[in-house]
Amino acid sequence: MKLIGYFRSGASYRVRIALNVKGIKVEHAFRHLRKGEQKSDDYLKINPQGLVPSLLLDDGTVLTQSIAIMEWLDETHPQPPLLPKDPVNRAKVRAFALAVSCDIHPVQNLGPLNKLAAFGIDQANVTRWAKEVNFDGLQACEALIAAEKGPFCFGDTPTMADICLVPQLVNARRFGADISGFKRILEAEAACLKLPAFADAVPEKQPDAE
Amino acid sequence: MKLIGYFRSGASYRVRIALNVKGIKVEHAFRHLRKGEQKSDDYLKINPQGLVPSLLLDDGTVLTQSIAIMEWLDETHPQPPLLPKDPVNRAKVRAFALAVSCDIHPVQNLGPLNKLAAFGIDQANVTRWAKEVNFDGLQACEALIAAEKGPFCFGDTPTMADICLVPQLVNARRFGADISGFKRILEAEAACLKLPAFADAVPEKQPDAE
Repeated sequence: MKLIGYFRSGASYRVRIALNVKGIKVEHAFRHLRKGEQKSDDYLKINPQGLVPSLLLDDGTVLTQSIAIMEWLDETHPQPPLLPKDPVNRAKVRAFALAVSCDIHPVQNLGPLNKLAAFGIDQANVTRWAKEVNFDGLQACEALIAAEKGPFCFGDTPTMADICLVPQLVNARRFGADISGFKRILEAEAACLKLPAFADAVPEKQPDAE
Repeated sequence: MKLIGYFRSGASYRVRIALNVKGIKVEHAFRHLRKGEQKSDDYLKINPQGLVPSLLLDDGTVLTQSIAIMEWLDETHPQPPLLPKDPVNRAKVRAFALAVSCDIHPVQNLGPLNKLAAFGIDQANVTRWAKEVNFDGLQACEALIAAEKGPFCFGDTPTMADICLVPQLVNARRFGADISGFKRILEAEAACLKLPAFADAVPEKQPDAE
């Protein structure tokens, strides 16, 4: 398998963690998002959305969208699981993962931020946009797990929820969001980063990091 | 079960279709999004994100996030399925559903559009933003299914991909995106709207439609 990603891409970071959790070694390739390499003709043939990551299977099949890739990993390599067994608990973990992946990440991602600039928003306000989207979104996420036992988002093992949360916190801090009040989120992050599966996947440890 | 939704919410529309596909009757309740009823204190206790839909189970459990709700429906009420059986095919269907649900819908949803206005973008440009997000996103979606057999997005039965696509097309048209060139998408939509599960779920047929 080959993962095409970018060190700073939150969605690539999710898949790096998930592969580590499963103990799956893959070849790594990179597209430099700030240089626009994800919009080249050859890459658009692989991933028509022009986004990373893409996971290339050995038979040439291309899987896209980090959540879909994680679901595929969990179906084809069940141990250790990324989701609990009980359907309601699975739904809660997925809802948290989607609260990050749908309602925070794409709204503060490179494409929309570039679009804001193209619509005449100055750089300080583009950053304010991203900061507010992260703060407001993570505030809701904190409420989603406030009553759940820790130390992870949902109990004593990491799930897809944690795998979506940890990369988002990198962005939240980068854009200056004050997340110091989100106690459950920070507890989950600390528990995750003690695990090699998460610690080895951090952006600054990747070969394409600058 | 009780579904709290809004007739014009694309995410509520998805869950209405999925419930119809499964033949599940639920009680319906509504939050008027333009009046901000989804941000009231009582509703935020149900859904801390202040979004619709929420699905209330009979034991009081609240499920949120339309994709998580559809996955739960498919796990607890397997027939007819919303996803194919083969893991790679499931991943492709999910990737398409997420290309709509992550990369189009939240970027042109009411919250971000209100935020654009708050950041000083005038109404004509807010609409242009939504139109472009829909056009660009659906163009990528068209490419994702260009090589797939029809009439639905992925073959001869509707899946989660179609359930995410059909509501998005309502928005695309509302914002003036010219989708006439997206032949596979329009083929899938036409096939879907012949089915009562889809046709009965359209916004204008809901009790809260204006």
